[in-house]
Amino acid sequence: MKVNIGVSARHVHLSRNDLDILFGKDYELTEKAPLSQPGQFACNEQVTIEGEKGSIERVRILGPLRSKTQVEISKTDSFKLGVKPPVRNSGDLDGASSITIIGPKGKVTVDAAIIASRHVHATKEDAKKYGFEGKEFVSLKVGGEKPGILENVYVRISDSFVYEVHLDTDDANAFLIKNGDEAELIVK
Amino acid sequence: MKVNIGVSARHVHLSRNDLDILFGKDYELTEKAPLSQPGQFACNEQVTIEGEKGSIERVRILGPLRSKTQVEISKTDSFKLGVKPPVRNSGDLDGASSITIIGPKGKVTVDAAIIASRHVHATKEDAKKYGFEGKEFVSLKVGGEKPGILENVYVRISDSFVYEVHLDTDDANAFLIKNGDEAELIVK
Repeated sequence: MKVNIGVSARHVHLSRNDLDILFGKDYELTEKAPLSQPGQFACNEQVTIEGEKGSIERVRILGPLRSKTQVEISKTDSFKLGVKPPVRNSGDLDGASSITIIGPKGKVTVDAAIIASRHVHATKEDAKKYGFEGKEFVSLKVGGEKPGILENVYVRISDSFVYEVHLDTDDANAFLIKNGDEAELIVK
Repeated sequence: MKVNIGVSARHVHLSRNDLDILFGKDYELTEKAPLSQPGQFACNEQVTIEGEKGSIERVRILGPLRSKTQVEISKTDSFKLGVKPPVRNSGDLDGASSITIIGPKGKVTVDAAIIASRHVHATKEDAKKYGFEGKEFVSLKVGGEKPGILENVYVRISDSFVYEVHLDTDDANAFLIKNGDEAELIVK
């Protein structure tokens, strides 16, 4: 039950309103490269994110636009920024930390910073085929020099998904995982 | 089988010769705070470490002096610095990466950068009591919102040790572990 791993570096999803403020009214994001999930893409546009203690420059915007702005950072980033983001599934901003996003034309401060949950993208057919149909969480067994098991990998199902686990850079670096590596999905 | 976890931030151990170069001949390190392992201490002195792509300032020196200079960094740090350190047990500098250390009086470039292996400090009695006598590796089961199992935790035995697992900041941040947290040691 091998699965490919996508490593997600810190990034920002923007709402129409916040894109207008950061880059100018009616600005359109430009695609730098497609991501593995259909319709998703990395943009040429970057922003600075800022918390109470520090800032991080050149944070990539991912498209397309969303209904709500969301800033996904790692725990490591959170110490540098001085924010305390909760662990959340993408789209769930309940309790998200306040963070300032700075673009070339303006800045916004929004309750939008989260640490994204470990998750697996799959179609219904993938879930059935690999034995985790109806499961909310699976686990990931990783080999190598710093091996182990990452638990609470949230199952996200959509007919448009490509089967792939997404981890943030803290999880990846702790286990010496590179983007595109394989690991074993396990169901308990 | 609960065990306390010490989180090791990036740090430097220095040889007498390298301390002389960095801080001046016959300089003596000054203690800022004792560490959990007897005789070990954090120093007031800090240095900058530099690789091909970047540098990190204010890296703490740990005392006392050692026979060989050793720089312990995380995988995350390694990307920022542009070095490719191997995973090694403390004291094993086989294949260690070249890194430049900059002090107030001088700088040295040494093959000294490693990612420290996950490890547990224990006495022979601890190993017997907790069931890992004679084992080279144990595992650590971590709870919380990002739970899992960290494997290949190297067993280090000495009569002077305090029973404690040491993890680097990548492992800690991936599992939302803070210095002083508890986890469960497991033996396979």
